Amino acid sequence: MSLSMFNDCLYGRLRQQAGQHWHDYVSHTFVQQLAAGTLPHAAFQRYLTQDYLFLLHFARAYALLVSKLHTLPEMRAATTSLNAIVSELPLHLTYCAQWGLSESDIVNDAEAPETLNYTRYVLDIGHSGDALDLLAALMPCVAGYAEIGLGLLNNPATVMRNNPYAAWIQNYGDESYLAGVQASLTLFENIARQRGGESRFDALANIFTTATRLESAFWQMGLNAGNTSNALISACSR
Amino acid sequence: MSLSMFNDCLYGRLRQQAGQHWHDYVSHTFVQQLAAGTLPHAAFQRYLTQDYLFLLHFARAYALLVSKLHTLPEMRAATTSLNAIVSELPLHLTYCAQWGLSESDIVNDAEAPETLNYTRYVLDIGHSGDALDLLAALMPCVAGYAEIGLGLLNNPATVMRNNPYAAWIQNYGDESYLAGVQASLTLFENIARQRGGESRFDALANIFTTATRLESAFWQMGLNAGNTSNALISACSR
Amino acid sequence: MSLSMFNDCLYGRLRQQAGQHWHDYVSHTFVQQLAAGTLPHAAFQRYLTQDYLFLLHFARAYALLVSKLHTLPEMRAATTSLNAIVSELPLHLTYCAQWGLSESDIVNDAEAPETLNYTRYVLDIGHSGDALDLLAALMPCVAGYAEIGLGLLNNPATVMRNNPYAAWIQNYGDESYLAGVQASLTLFENIARQRGGESRFDALANIFTTATRLESAFWQMGLNAGNTSNALISACSR
Amino acid sequence: MSLSMFNDCLYGRLRQQAGQHWHDYVSHTFVQQLAAGTLPHAAFQRYLTQDYLFLLHFARAYALLVSKLHTLPEMRAATTSLNAIVSELPLHLTYCAQWGLSESDIVNDAEAPETLNYTRYVLDIGHSGDALDLLAALMPCVAGYAEIGLGLLNNPATVMRNNPYAAWIQNYGDESYLAGVQASLTLFENIARQRGGESRFDALANIFTTATRLESAFWQMGLNAGNTSNALISACSR
Repeated sequence: MSLSMFNDCLYGRLRQQAGQHWHDYVSHTFVQQLAAGTLPHAAFQRYLTQDYLFLLHFARAYALLVSKLHTLPEMRAATTSLNAIVSELPLHLTYCAQWGLSESDIVNDAEAPETLNYTRYVLDIGHSGDALDLLAALMPCVAGYAEIGLGLLNNPATVMRNNPYAAWIQNYGDESYLAGVQASLTLFENIARQRGGESRFDALANIFTTATRLESAFWQMGLNAGNTSNALISACSR
Repeated sequence: MSLSMFNDCLYGRLRQQAGQHWHDYVSHTFVQQLAAGTLPHAAFQRYLTQDYLFLLHFARAYALLVSKLHTLPEMRAATTSLNAIVSELPLHLTYCAQWGLSESDIVNDAEAPETLNYTRYVLDIGHSGDALDLLAALMPCVAGYAEIGLGLLNNPATVMRNNPYAAWIQNYGDESYLAGVQASLTLFENIARQRGGESRFDALANIFTTATRLESAFWQMGLNAGNTSNALISACSR
Repeated sequence: MSLSMFNDCLYGRLRQQAGQHWHDYVSHTFVQQLAAGTLPHAAFQRYLTQDYLFLLHFARAYALLVSKLHTLPEMRAATTSLNAIVSELPLHLTYCAQWGLSESDIVNDAEAPETLNYTRYVLDIGHSGDALDLLAALMPCVAGYAEIGLGLLNNPATVMRNNPYAAWIQNYGDESYLAGVQASLTLFENIARQRGGESRFDALANIFTTATRLESAFWQMGLNAGNTSNALISACSR
Repeated sequence: MSLSMFNDCLYGRLRQQAGQHWHDYVSHTFVQQLAAGTLPHAAFQRYLTQDYLFLLHFARAYALLVSKLHTLPEMRAATTSLNAIVSELPLHLTYCAQWGLSESDIVNDAEAPETLNYTRYVLDIGHSGDALDLLAALMPCVAGYAEIGLGLLNNPATVMRNNPYAAWIQNYGDESYLAGVQASLTLFENIARQRGGESRFDALANIFTTATRLESAFWQMGLNAGNTSNALISACSR
């Protein structure tokens, strides 16, 4: 399965328009180190914790999307995405526990500026615009993670044996995750047919690219935690 | 099972404050004729069609509620209610088909003023207020239907044999429906503990009573369709 | 001055698409009786009272519009309309006082279903859609009143001498009111250029026509109050 | 005139609860250097540019507040604040021009993460909560600037002669600015009486303190630009 069928659609055009920003996101150093299994644990832990807080607000954004739709098939599609996030969150906590992060550690952690920035930007786009604007802000996360997961799984250079991040990679390259992404992309293209038009392309591309850059900043936040931690460790070991 | 445990809580106080308006709603002539099996078919068909359109917007209101919450347990509770409505809607269509109403009849029917009034009032309360205001606007429908369903089932005067509305009565007196209602009431009381206070009681009672009156108007809309239809039929048969 | 310059723009197309519904609104019996000075006082009083409550929520809708815009010139244009309503409301009360309606009569009057229906519909369109959807829901009131006011002033059949409604007619045909309308239409066309497109025309026409029909229902609510009152008076005088 | 009359009210309690965070904000190094006239020009320019973008979204938040209110006196109070910002923005551009910043420089500058963080946080609080939550998020900016302006003007240590920032200090200590702040605080306390209560205090304090911290981060963003610029200048001059 691939997401290539969406290349000719609005999603494909927005992804292309994001250009280098899209490339920076899907092949971020964080992702490369995940694939090689060399990412510092502290970086991954920081990412996991903030990703939980991110997903809470991302679920709120999908709920907002449901409230902006008016037909049952569209509402069901968006509700399915909302459910996927809401039911994933407890699994996320289980996975976090394997990384030594307790539920209270996570829930009580302060939101990083990168988390707040990204989620509240998406919510504001949703409130100030329509369902198409909101979906354009949601797609970089939804479809980008599938591209990253699939890309890593299909890349022979990806280390899967003894890679502590192998389960993460499997998860985002998984058929069931991809089916959910495809459903979201289908909803996006449906809404684009109803509400799109060339006059809106630049503004939608601006939203899509901004969300893409906020994704890169989110990876970088994780990476920085690894660096700081390394720096502290190396400082201690001198 | 009963809903009596909520009598001392905010729900119980609001229900009491609604007084005669609450009584008018839960023992509306429409309900009495349902219980007796004497409701004109045209009245029920009108009700069923508009109830589908109502539920679409009611689901949007629950989605809005999810977007206004900030913790996973609260979001899950509200999402469960949203799911209950969204998954019930196709069953609703199946049930409508038994009453001779096709999906396209229903989806293409214009919203009655009573439907538009009620649903947009609830949505506006949600947008202009907080989660507690919104829940106060949602509760008369959610908990009132359970009270009606349970009340009819427990009333020996209710006709269940050869009553074309027996399935409707069973549905709203059903354990699974009641469990959902109880979960909604629990969420309501939780949010009330966080955000309530005596200063807000009058405004919340105003919202609750307004929604209660809009419920009565909704029954009346159904009833009027029956009367019109009867009038037409009796006019024809002269 | 005329609004004819907007005929080729989106507003002109939407107005044309509304067809008979538009005609019913701008030449409603209520309007004809205003022009002839024959409208029952009770009808006008009912209209005035509900129009105050309507304008409160209409101002909220313009405020929502401001919150959905992102550039200063657009925000200023919408804020100007908001200000026009908010500063007009005390004048509205002064005018009402001349018709024997005190501020507390008005503020404490229950919203008529027609008022609730119309205003909450507009607000919901604003929350679920974008600035263009919201403006399409606002235009029938804004531009329709100018068309009515200008039309009555320019029509030699309109009675201006000894017509108790002459001040009302003057007000909506006034240059300063028209300048505000023109500014709103200009904002609408600007947003249409940015966010419009043929794919959206049917949905926008549906919004515009719905709001137009809700305007007619609003006139009718006033008219009905006149009839009821007349009926009561004639019943008493028998 | 002072703002001390609000010490016993909710505002005073929230300000006290913010504790060290409030102190850090109102006596930030940026403010101290403004008072001494020693702030690097580049820091002030960065601040001015981002403050324009900040104010655009802050105006959107006040517009959202208007849309969440339901009585004319409250709506007028909030609209007055909205107008103050919207009419100040062109003056802001004139002032910026004196600092060598053209309108297009400013309008086209990318929002700093600190600007995006702060404004979208406030907007999200407004959408997910009620008018009281939103006002709690708005007050640190509104009332804090008055406290800073008044504090600097009343402090004999403040350099007013030959201080390039004297006009800025005058502006925020000015009677007309303070009157606006007082009106906002009065609205806040009114809404607090209607919708407040001890159960909400912790959550409101959390919002108020978060916004206070985002204010400090905003000053720091300006300061950092000064440091970077100095570093670059000193690097160039080596």
